[in-house]
Amino acid sequence: MTVTAPKGFRAAGVTAGIKTSGNRDVALVVNDGPSAAAAAVFTMNRCEAHPVTWSRKAVADGSISAVLINSGGANCFTGAFGYETVEVTAAAAAAKLGIADTDVLVCSTGLIGAGDQTFRDGVLKGIDLAYDALGTDTESGEQAADAIRTTDSVIKVGVREGTGGYTIGAMAKGAGMLAPGLATMLVVITTDADLESAALDAALREATRVSFDRVDSDGAMSTNDTVALLASGASGITPDTAEFTELLRGLCNDLAKQLQQDAEGASHDITITTMGAASETDAVNVSRAVSRSNLFKAAIFGNDPNWGRVLAAIGTTDAEFVPEQIDVSMNGAMVCKAGTPYVPVDQVDLTPRETTVLINLHAGDAEATILTNDLTHDYVHENSAYSS
Amino acid sequence: MTVTAPKGFRAAGVTAGIKTSGNRDVALVVNDGPSAAAAAVFTMNRCEAHPVTWSRKAVADGSISAVLINSGGANCFTGAFGYETVEVTAAAAAAKLGIADTDVLVCSTGLIGAGDQTFRDGVLKGIDLAYDALGTDTESGEQAADAIRTTDSVIKVGVREGTGGYTIGAMAKGAGMLAPGLATMLVVITTDADLESAALDAALREATRVSFDRVDSDGAMSTNDTVALLASGASGITPDTAEFTELLRGLCNDLAKQLQQDAEGASHDITITTMGAASETDAVNVSRAVSRSNLFKAAIFGNDPNWGRVLAAIGTTDAEFVPEQIDVSMNGAMVCKAGTPYVPVDQVDLTPRETTVLINLHAGDAEATILTNDLTHDYVHENSAYSS
Repeated sequence: MTVTAPKGFRAAGVTAGIKTSGNRDVALVVNDGPSAAAAAVFTMNRCEAHPVTWSRKAVADGSISAVLINSGGANCFTGAFGYETVEVTAAAAAAKLGIADTDVLVCSTGLIGAGDQTFRDGVLKGIDLAYDALGTDTESGEQAADAIRTTDSVIKVGVREGTGGYTIGAMAKGAGMLAPGLATMLVVITTDADLESAALDAALREATRVSFDRVDSDGAMSTNDTVALLASGASGITPDTAEFTELLRGLCNDLAKQLQQDAEGASHDITITTMGAASETDAVNVSRAVSRSNLFKAAIFGNDPNWGRVLAAIGTTDAEFVPEQIDVSMNGAMVCKAGTPYVPVDQVDLTPRETTVLINLHAGDAEATILTNDLTHDYVHENSAYSS
Repeated sequence: MTVTAPKGFRAAGVTAGIKTSGNRDVALVVNDGPSAAAAAVFTMNRCEAHPVTWSRKAVADGSISAVLINSGGANCFTGAFGYETVEVTAAAAAAKLGIADTDVLVCSTGLIGAGDQTFRDGVLKGIDLAYDALGTDTESGEQAADAIRTTDSVIKVGVREGTGGYTIGAMAKGAGMLAPGLATMLVVITTDADLESAALDAALREATRVSFDRVDSDGAMSTNDTVALLASGASGITPDTAEFTELLRGLCNDLAKQLQQDAEGASHDITITTMGAASETDAVNVSRAVSRSNLFKAAIFGNDPNWGRVLAAIGTTDAEFVPEQIDVSMNGAMVCKAGTPYVPVDQVDLTPRETTVLINLHAGDAEATILTNDLTHDYVHENSAYSS
């Protein structure tokens, strides 16, 4: 059910003491091959964390044999010492595994600015513990998925089976700072398919473009986002790339949905679809503008079908539309038709957690969907009551 | 102290029954001349309200003799009937005052989608009542300022005196949907200075650019924003345009500050200044990106100097900077120096309502300030508990 589902992968998740909570905080995922082909996408945030800087370089040759992940500290804006920590810990993991330093992808998540000597010692201890705990079983994979959690209330995992018997497995974390920038969280995807890194890269970019890039829970782009795809080739199957991409996209969508459903403090999962757009870009921009309106998000929390806030958000975009032609539906009721009130708002039931907003711009044939959440007291509480 | 302070202006604020609360809901401001020179700036929201569409046309000739404002309904997305309401009510006010329909500027504020026959009847009744109540005294001006309130807890007014004895007076409303787009609220500014509309327009654009355009309380741009400047010329003084612009800028800044201080549900007034920027645009974009980070805003609500969230927001901009050179100070304590933790966060006191964030990009000499507020339980409550 997770990264150990495909042949050729071992994983572990251990408690190294980085988190004061005593929860698991270091995960290791190892690709035993025969292939070490890999691809990864990273945050577009220009203030990127040290592990991202390292990992961009590490994956540049298309080869990665292990992913080292810690929670409990982002190792971002931690100065030269922070980058050195990435080098030191990658080297330690590589030495244990008998691989090159640059075949270790490193990911961190937690508080920005956290990454001192204690943090480094914790990661190093975690590497030793994790190495000893590595296993190919489901439990090992689930423990790895558990170790990468921060404010996530549940683990996020998934698996897909391809034609001929190859498998794709995945784990993800992410509950806050969920907004696009290629990747928007930490995700490790494994497969025993036999594919070159260029094919993996193309499939990964296509899959993330329409999945993780379209989760916009709180408009805040993380400094540490990484989605890595590792292929062991252990199934001996080289799949059709179209099928592989489609499976990967489905898996990424599944994980994106899991992220949305576990977003910090949310009480509604809101699917905003814009159709009738002149271009896919227009559709994405319109859906995203609505997903970033605090007034709209607070109204949904209050079960208030305040469609005027949807239109006010649409009006901030440069998408092609004529205001007097726009339709807006909420949970199936067209509350605004051609820019005018239509179904009375008291006929809209917004009490279910699953909420849909459908916008028709009547300007073309393109459409796109953004997944977001409502703005709740719990969101404010979770993000004000303690640093994360 | 308000729009009746300059010579040549009458004002009134009355209860016409548009608001169910029984509070004042229709205001009328009349310029008795001798000049009727005027300028106005409007929302950049492409889904603009019908009164904005009307008023753009009305002010195009540089002449306005009256401003009719209602609260209790935005008359936006109300179809052809809504635009007709603007025409009908402007004509009614014009007939009472013996002026041309197109010399009446119309503004509305309240719920988007609200503007039916009952609304129209309310405004028409309000015109009759307001006409009878017009006065040049301070109380009349304050009643007008009261009538334009929605969720504003206090009236916002101001006055400035110019060399030789001319006066500028103003009233404003705005407590939610506060984000830029030229103007971001309803503001009426009066002056008895004798200036042509072109000079008024230049001064108004310069003043709003660095005042109202830099309040970004909740990132939500309204559909109805209007800032109007009316000059009666009744002082007989034609001021130096530099002095007039400077006075106007100071007055607009004063009102912008009043808007920030009364923002819905806020517990902190946050002044975000970016200095050392390569351009003013860079400085504005960086300050604004931080002001729109819900994570940052929630942290300030919790008195948590979480500077990592400041840097994560900076990283989403295309401003010129090197992450390793950025300094961030909060309430005078440099918590991040050259991209590395500096003053320990437990030495930062964020309990005062007035909060300052100073960012130094070390990329140039430009700077700019954005005024914003924190993200609080009360903000969520006010914007989820009822439609506004």
